[in-house]
Amino acid sequence: MVYDRMSDQPAFTSGDTYMRVPRVATPEELLAERPDAVIVGAPLDWATTHRPGARFGPRAIRAASNLRRGAYHLDLQVYPFKELRVVDYGDPEIAPGDIERSHAAVKRHVAEVMAAGAVPVVLGGDHSITYPSASAVAEAIGPGKIGVIHFDAHADTADESWGVALSHGTPMRRLVTSGAVPGTNFVQIGLRGYWPPDDVWRWMREQGMRWHTMEEIERDGLSAVLGRALAEVHEHAEAIYLSVDIDVLDPGFAPGTGTPEPGG
Amino acid sequence: MVYDRMSDQPAFTSGDTYMRVPRVATPEELLAERPDAVIVGAPLDWATTHRPGARFGPRAIRAASNLRRGAYHLDLQVYPFKELRVVDYGDPEIAPGDIERSHAAVKRHVAEVMAAGAVPVVLGGDHSITYPSASAVAEAIGPGKIGVIHFDAHADTADESWGVALSHGTPMRRLVTSGAVPGTNFVQIGLRGYWPPDDVWRWMREQGMRWHTMEEIERDGLSAVLGRALAEVHEHAEAIYLSVDIDVLDPGFAPGTGTPEPGG
Amino acid sequence: MVYDRMSDQPAFTSGDTYMRVPRVATPEELLAERPDAVIVGAPLDWATTHRPGARFGPRAIRAASNLRRGAYHLDLQVYPFKELRVVDYGDPEIAPGDIERSHAAVKRHVAEVMAAGAVPVVLGGDHSITYPSASAVAEAIGPGKIGVIHFDAHADTADESWGVALSHGTPMRRLVTSGAVPGTNFVQIGLRGYWPPDDVWRWMREQGMRWHTMEEIERDGLSAVLGRALAEVHEHAEAIYLSVDIDVLDPGFAPGTGTPEPGG
Amino acid sequence: MVYDRMSDQPAFTSGDTYMRVPRVATPEELLAERPDAVIVGAPLDWATTHRPGARFGPRAIRAASNLRRGAYHLDLQVYPFKELRVVDYGDPEIAPGDIERSHAAVKRHVAEVMAAGAVPVVLGGDHSITYPSASAVAEAIGPGKIGVIHFDAHADTADESWGVALSHGTPMRRLVTSGAVPGTNFVQIGLRGYWPPDDVWRWMREQGMRWHTMEEIERDGLSAVLGRALAEVHEHAEAIYLSVDIDVLDPGFAPGTGTPEPGG
Amino acid sequence: MVYDRMSDQPAFTSGDTYMRVPRVATPEELLAERPDAVIVGAPLDWATTHRPGARFGPRAIRAASNLRRGAYHLDLQVYPFKELRVVDYGDPEIAPGDIERSHAAVKRHVAEVMAAGAVPVVLGGDHSITYPSASAVAEAIGPGKIGVIHFDAHADTADESWGVALSHGTPMRRLVTSGAVPGTNFVQIGLRGYWPPDDVWRWMREQGMRWHTMEEIERDGLSAVLGRALAEVHEHAEAIYLSVDIDVLDPGFAPGTGTPEPGG
Amino acid sequence: MVYDRMSDQPAFTSGDTYMRVPRVATPEELLAERPDAVIVGAPLDWATTHRPGARFGPRAIRAASNLRRGAYHLDLQVYPFKELRVVDYGDPEIAPGDIERSHAAVKRHVAEVMAAGAVPVVLGGDHSITYPSASAVAEAIGPGKIGVIHFDAHADTADESWGVALSHGTPMRRLVTSGAVPGTNFVQIGLRGYWPPDDVWRWMREQGMRWHTMEEIERDGLSAVLGRALAEVHEHAEAIYLSVDIDVLDPGFAPGTGTPEPGG
Repeated sequence: MVYDRMSDQPAFTSGDTYMRVPRVATPEELLAERPDAVIVGAPLDWATTHRPGARFGPRAIRAASNLRRGAYHLDLQVYPFKELRVVDYGDPEIAPGDIERSHAAVKRHVAEVMAAGAVPVVLGGDHSITYPSASAVAEAIGPGKIGVIHFDAHADTADESWGVALSHGTPMRRLVTSGAVPGTNFVQIGLRGYWPPDDVWRWMREQGMRWHTMEEIERDGLSAVLGRALAEVHEHAEAIYLSVDIDVLDPGFAPGTGTPEPGG
Repeated sequence: MVYDRMSDQPAFTSGDTYMRVPRVATPEELLAERPDAVIVGAPLDWATTHRPGARFGPRAIRAASNLRRGAYHLDLQVYPFKELRVVDYGDPEIAPGDIERSHAAVKRHVAEVMAAGAVPVVLGGDHSITYPSASAVAEAIGPGKIGVIHFDAHADTADESWGVALSHGTPMRRLVTSGAVPGTNFVQIGLRGYWPPDDVWRWMREQGMRWHTMEEIERDGLSAVLGRALAEVHEHAEAIYLSVDIDVLDPGFAPGTGTPEPGG
Repeated sequence: MVYDRMSDQPAFTSGDTYMRVPRVATPEELLAERPDAVIVGAPLDWATTHRPGARFGPRAIRAASNLRRGAYHLDLQVYPFKELRVVDYGDPEIAPGDIERSHAAVKRHVAEVMAAGAVPVVLGGDHSITYPSASAVAEAIGPGKIGVIHFDAHADTADESWGVALSHGTPMRRLVTSGAVPGTNFVQIGLRGYWPPDDVWRWMREQGMRWHTMEEIERDGLSAVLGRALAEVHEHAEAIYLSVDIDVLDPGFAPGTGTPEPGG
Repeated sequence: MVYDRMSDQPAFTSGDTYMRVPRVATPEELLAERPDAVIVGAPLDWATTHRPGARFGPRAIRAASNLRRGAYHLDLQVYPFKELRVVDYGDPEIAPGDIERSHAAVKRHVAEVMAAGAVPVVLGGDHSITYPSASAVAEAIGPGKIGVIHFDAHADTADESWGVALSHGTPMRRLVTSGAVPGTNFVQIGLRGYWPPDDVWRWMREQGMRWHTMEEIERDGLSAVLGRALAEVHEHAEAIYLSVDIDVLDPGFAPGTGTPEPGG
Repeated sequence: MVYDRMSDQPAFTSGDTYMRVPRVATPEELLAERPDAVIVGAPLDWATTHRPGARFGPRAIRAASNLRRGAYHLDLQVYPFKELRVVDYGDPEIAPGDIERSHAAVKRHVAEVMAAGAVPVVLGGDHSITYPSASAVAEAIGPGKIGVIHFDAHADTADESWGVALSHGTPMRRLVTSGAVPGTNFVQIGLRGYWPPDDVWRWMREQGMRWHTMEEIERDGLSAVLGRALAEVHEHAEAIYLSVDIDVLDPGFAPGTGTPEPGG
Repeated sequence: MVYDRMSDQPAFTSGDTYMRVPRVATPEELLAERPDAVIVGAPLDWATTHRPGARFGPRAIRAASNLRRGAYHLDLQVYPFKELRVVDYGDPEIAPGDIERSHAAVKRHVAEVMAAGAVPVVLGGDHSITYPSASAVAEAIGPGKIGVIHFDAHADTADESWGVALSHGTPMRRLVTSGAVPGTNFVQIGLRGYWPPDDVWRWMREQGMRWHTMEEIERDGLSAVLGRALAEVHEHAEAIYLSVDIDVLDPGFAPGTGTPEPGG
């Protein structure tokens, strides 16, 4: 019935799909489609400590994606959406203001994509979503088997933010402390500025985490740094989870980001 | 196949539905749903003579509509979407920059809704869309049988705008000259300011068109004027086509309108 | 020490004061100042279900307030800040993303103002703050003794929002169900549009809540309605808590509001 | 002919005169044109005490004016630009940051319009421009002979603003103290809010200034108040200078104003 | 003299020519001025397939140009407007919504500049204007004699956009198929991303068109690529038409562009 | 008393502190704190010749600074605010619209910081503030003893701007002509575009001023240029005054700057 259907998700969730690939609505449809890759939205921002708004991210990315019509990549000379079967699994049933339940919904959604044998592509949302999302992937692949390449201005390895353990400043810490991803399997790229404080750096070193600062990129070039990062992550990991925080870019290129850090 | 599907409409068309009512994609599905009312988008603005952007209107209205969750109207004490079966028939196949083909697509889309026995609700787009949309309704109901109640700051009865016959300044003229709606069947509400010039006023009088200016509304009140308008339109018409140009509101309430006219 | 001091509150909290009244930092200072009225910020928005941003509200209101220099009210012919001793007690120690702890901090802050014998003036923040704030006042005055006059487009009497009990849609429900304010002591002004659904209306009637819709205001005038509201609230209450949701205004006057409702 | 000339291109094309009336560049051209009314820009805002930007006012008003193409007023049934010969005399030679020299330039420009026997229409700019502009008119008409009807949220009768005698808060004071316009010849409409303080009110009363607050307009209606204002100003004045500060409107209708005052 | 004239008022004052060079209104005046270069506006955007607004481009460029007061270039140590006689020929008589008539008007305007023996500098407007503008130049210089250096993120060589042959995605195709500019005479710089599809690439290769991708610029540097481009264009052409689409820049530098393509 | 306190500065001045360091209110408190560095605001923009707004600069910088919580710099591995004692001395008593009095207030404020033996960090405000600020430093250090490293798109060495000697285009000229800083002690970095004209360049050469254009930076790299600049400034100066105009950055990174100059 129409009324029930339209009332089941907050207004900021998306009804559109990424690049107009087909929408799948249920785990059964997902399995039946046998997709190579699956788009998932994670429209939540109540784990941010400064400027919110990322709850509108998945909707905005989906709307903007439509401009990439046809999608033949000129340097690669490939039609990605012809080579791969891609569907959009929509947004999970997040609960505005409730981080734990929203994280659980994201994790369940990503786990269903993994169960369908597809690569999940998660559109955020604040960066706290990496904890449930990468956890679901780690559980599907096997404990300690995935590596994380993490593009960000900040390490996101706080133990808590004003007492909140699941904030946008803590996802990488949670992945380590929960056992989903060992510290040795992390390579961070683009760090700069004034975070984290030295006790967090100490903890990161103790875990065997590795990073490449923006200063290193400016000195040696992006290609060299990417080469090092890939070599490092492959020392320990069988599969790679790629996490991109938009604030790795300079705010001149992404003025809406919540915790802008000049110099990306 | 995914590639074909996603490339068939411009990026500014909508993938979402109004208030999350079900989407129907084909005339067959439309007939099968037996709806009471059908949402149609008309995302075109290349018939405007000043500030464009209304092509994003249907997408923006659909996104904003989701906030009306549940939709129990407190004064009327009714659930409109429980009383009526409503579906969204998406956007017709408009062609950016080609007014004639875009109008033909709008007309066809609305005609299909009429054929399904439902009330069309068209989301614009610039006001030129009233010509194809009301024409489709007039053809379905019968020549001379519909009346038009038209809320607007401007009469939209020019014969042409810089030589363009199908501009956003001409739809009411086209409806009259094409025979779809006789001048006697028009009642305009909210006119004010500096348009149209006196030769257009003369033509309007000759056609038997009627109007109520914003000055009349301020003097006598909106209720009184609405009463007069309804009485007038029912003198000649069996059915009413309601046309609302957002610039009937003062620009303070709709700052994005293309041809703002203070005083609404 | 400088470092500790600057790190104890999120960046969106305020360092400035309302209309440049003196800042007081501790409960002891508050008592010593013997103020008539005390400004309190409640910079939280993680209990919103749509557009966030109200966490910047207290800072923005304080900055804008400075324009009211001198503050002689021309119709009242009075200098409010000469007649009354007003201080700004800053923002409580909210925790971004944690509604319960943030509410507890707001409640404690307002309770301290009540203990100082002053009238609290709380700057939000999303409307969920009315629950802790009015609870603190009710506890200080005595159970069942305060009335609430509530200007809003929405009744804010949901039992939960997507399962969240302390959301911006529930504060008036929580005040009733917690016993802080009986339903008979509520008078709501400005309701309109599509919320709440009929089961919530039924609950409101059962509690003896009263309301005046925007339709009533348009028909009878604001003065008449205010007279009725004051008479009603005084039937049961010894003191009045005034709660204003900015969305009681039409979005044309407050375009940044999170859940805009036309017609205020 | 003026009307034809200004109607030949869309409003968004480039053009720098008000409604595309002819530009005149020198006093000699001005005299030769024998205009009825003359547009003058006064692009200065360095006399503001809060949000600047009004220096872009004349350019923005001229650009926006082009939308009023043809300019037949539907309620008045008149083509103002056919009835009156109007030209645009451009902007005087203001000096950014130097109030005195800029005021002198405005005064000289307006005096030249008066010498041409035309009505000056001055586009601001901050409200300080009323001092040089009305002074030029008063000198041309004769001392004590003009009245000022002044629409504004604020009385603009301060003696100085942070020591600055020619600020946007002082023009009416300067007109009185310089002898250009006696206090008895002022009627102010729309005053509200928190300015001026009581010593300024006292001075205004001593000068015989009169005013009508926004509260009076809300109570008695705009028509009644305008009637009173016109009667009052005609008691003493042979000619009327009309001064409109955009902040007389509620900020909902003019969000860019520099010192917003709700309630207009 | 041009330099003195344009430097006599601040940039924010009103004025409608590029850098305040003299305006010429008729072909006769144009010939009489014997200019070296002539500014032409082409304010049309109804040939765009996504975000419109470029119709305001010529006005905005002219307004912004005033800031370059004096215009002594410090690296070149030259006053361009002293070395060259430059005038502004205004905008042609475009027709909003009618691409063909608007293109014809642009072509006629540019042809008149060529007839005056001057270099046209055309301010857009959407990129479709390159078709009429470069056609006028090609006709004046001689068939096959001009080369086009084209800075853009996109090749703009579609055969049609949703059936529209004169869209902003097709001007380079039209120049080739009309015979105005042979494919061999094109050198494109800055291409990247997801357009055009492979059949269009094939057509471009068949025509002998050449291009330098942004990837090549990042690898070899802009100087090297410009050197190659100039060498290539001079193989076939006697004169060069330079075409710059603002979206060749990253959207961080030109956020208002209609079809943003990251990476410029 | 509250009323007096809140009325003594314009609304756009700051009540907050930079990075929440302690506020000091009087010269006596300043001396007592024995700070290493002192923040000073200079909220004035009435010396600008184009887009104003920088008067809100100090308030905005202070609000944004709070995001740098903790402030451990990851590349330097240092807590600047633990190594140095920093306080915020607020804004001097500027007078909106009066450049001379505002400059005098800035100079006095900076002189008090120098008297306290601390390094002043001045937040602007338009660039005219460098004249009073660097003058105060030069007087404290001794005539001819300081050098100025000046990052800017423009040389700011005009003798006057539309007759105004203390504009944002003249501070470096004033420092030289007043004797505060000899021309030989200036090194400018980042110059580009169309200012100043050649007579000003000639004057700069005569004074022995030195500069490094953006073209030089693009050719040789920032590190090399900074090395040259430091060597040059140390030839003559014992202490360095660092002056940064935000327009040295490309407008893509600082879109609000008043006189944007592409290419930084």
